[in-house]
Amino acid sequence: MLLADGRELIHFDRDSSPARDVEDKRDLEPRGDAPALRHDPLLDEWVSVAAHRLGRTFLPSPDDCPLCPTRPGYLTEVPSDDYDVVVFENRFPSFVGGPVAQPATLGLFEHHPAWGRCEVVCFTPDHDASFADLDHDRARLVIEAWADRTTELSATPGVEQVFVFENRGEAIGVTMRHPHGQIYAYPFVTPTTRSQLDSAGRHLAATGRNLYDDIVAAEVADGSRVVLSSEHWVAFVPFAARWPVEVHLYPRRRVPDLAALTEAERDDLADVYLDLLRRGDAFFGIPLPYIAAWHQAPVTDRRDLGALHLELFSVQRSADKLKYLAGSESAMGSFINDREPEAIAERLREVAPR
Amino acid sequence: MLLADGRELIHFDRDSSPARDVEDKRDLEPRGDAPALRHDPLLDEWVSVAAHRLGRTFLPSPDDCPLCPTRPGYLTEVPSDDYDVVVFENRFPSFVGGPVAQPATLGLFEHHPAWGRCEVVCFTPDHDASFADLDHDRARLVIEAWADRTTELSATPGVEQVFVFENRGEAIGVTMRHPHGQIYAYPFVTPTTRSQLDSAGRHLAATGRNLYDDIVAAEVADGSRVVLSSEHWVAFVPFAARWPVEVHLYPRRRVPDLAALTEAERDDLADVYLDLLRRGDAFFGIPLPYIAAWHQAPVTDRRDLGALHLELFSVQRSADKLKYLAGSESAMGSFINDREPEAIAERLREVAPR
Repeated sequence: MLLADGRELIHFDRDSSPARDVEDKRDLEPRGDAPALRHDPLLDEWVSVAAHRLGRTFLPSPDDCPLCPTRPGYLTEVPSDDYDVVVFENRFPSFVGGPVAQPATLGLFEHHPAWGRCEVVCFTPDHDASFADLDHDRARLVIEAWADRTTELSATPGVEQVFVFENRGEAIGVTMRHPHGQIYAYPFVTPTTRSQLDSAGRHLAATGRNLYDDIVAAEVADGSRVVLSSEHWVAFVPFAARWPVEVHLYPRRRVPDLAALTEAERDDLADVYLDLLRRGDAFFGIPLPYIAAWHQAPVTDRRDLGALHLELFSVQRSADKLKYLAGSESAMGSFINDREPEAIAERLREVAPR
Repeated sequence: MLLADGRELIHFDRDSSPARDVEDKRDLEPRGDAPALRHDPLLDEWVSVAAHRLGRTFLPSPDDCPLCPTRPGYLTEVPSDDYDVVVFENRFPSFVGGPVAQPATLGLFEHHPAWGRCEVVCFTPDHDASFADLDHDRARLVIEAWADRTTELSATPGVEQVFVFENRGEAIGVTMRHPHGQIYAYPFVTPTTRSQLDSAGRHLAATGRNLYDDIVAAEVADGSRVVLSSEHWVAFVPFAARWPVEVHLYPRRRVPDLAALTEAERDDLADVYLDLLRRGDAFFGIPLPYIAAWHQAPVTDRRDLGALHLELFSVQRSADKLKYLAGSESAMGSFINDREPEAIAERLREVAPR
């Protein structure tokens, strides 16, 4: 269905046919200009310049949360009075609209509309919950939504990479507390993914093997940084972890994206992911601010080299201190971690939920 | 001279011969183990794991600031009772010691001691000042210290890149308020510099010209993002600025590093740099948290392609809001800027000091 300003909204429900197709009665202004995508010639990276986002919603109270279901007298982004999991286009997108022709070579001041798509994924109608509070069935439904949107967005012309993620906590800059994640459909391969694929390409040329496969196998064999393993998944702190809390989660069978997971792998993931998030909250005994980033193989560029995996990390250094990205990290991309990866893994193992 | 635990300290003075050679009477524990440098095989980047830094000094009051001169009854990092500008080795370094042999090919779990050097540069003995408060002569002396240390550290075996920077403000994670900067002598070329040089190499191959030269010329010709220009320097907001406040400063004559600047260029820089920092504080009318990052050409790797320039930027979005690096930036390296580069430049021009 479409919201009042033409944005798409999609319900994902446990039951097959609840009545969700309720009209959006709000009087919304049409969406403004698309942001611009500017090319940085020094780093060969695209930057989205989205000036309208400065005015976006900031830490609304539960009484005026736009992600809660609509109530009598209060109209939100979700017109129906209940939902299980719901996905809709972001009202303040960094990427929006269809593809624009691009020149073959890039000048110093190259720019065009920031096409692509930004979606919001509401995990539950419960404003005060967090992902770690969900039960298996709802977590499983979120995974279904992620996989479904990945398929749909990957088939959208111009989309080069689908990024499923959750920012959680004010320390990460989250402006709305209602439990939700996001999906970005980028019109380019992101710098981090490009760099990983470059490494994977060199590794393949040197060894004939896939880099991700070799890393997972080496971490399992070593064991000192493994946090958990299940029938279909294995989680470990990477050897060169950048963050005071960081863990990577891989399916045992390499797949390009969430859509390629089997039913059994998705079922198992619901449990394993909830387990990991609960360990995160137990790490310092506070609700952990985190970024949960699903790395998926690009839609076309070197797709066979890529590997679905989760990189979950936090800026929290202790119960009351944060890690900041200062000069070495922000300006030079060179990370300094104050905690040994093996110590992170040990802590994540010892706080396993009973 | 050497501090009690063997670290080097160097005074830079306006007058040629004040008596600064005072013994460090503290009973300091010897420095602990060197941090480890671990190679991340996914991104082909080195991460310094410096566990001892978790215990470092955090926001000391002026009464126990280790960067103030020593007073009767209170012994600090600077044994003398006064200084103009002083540089010493960081007590909690991310890089320390001399080079270690490295294998020709890197395995998946490659690591060695994090050799290199981390220095602290105290800009003034005045605990409550900031760089923008310095007078021309002292700013000029700081530049002299930066240039001198760049020469010295570049000649140190194993050092591949010398990074002069200042983190300013608690929003950047600064743990000591006393006005100071830092110098990192890295044993590798940092990811950001490597990426810039890759772009510069491609540009040279395609055009026969230097990328930095072409960017400066294009920005000057366009003019819409130029903030200031002087006899020897030009400052502009980059076309694809990533931060809500960002400005780059280049000498008109391309040089590899601060040490290569002439006397006239250094004199001019003192004024221009103070001017820029004061505009930063006027931007929102608050002391601006910032990272001032001096990009210098690497010591050996593609040194002829590199260009000294300053990248000065802030996470401040408004007088009371910060920009956070959330999923797109932190996990995928893809930046979204809420403010147009031309609007940043306009604001930086209109707040010019009288």
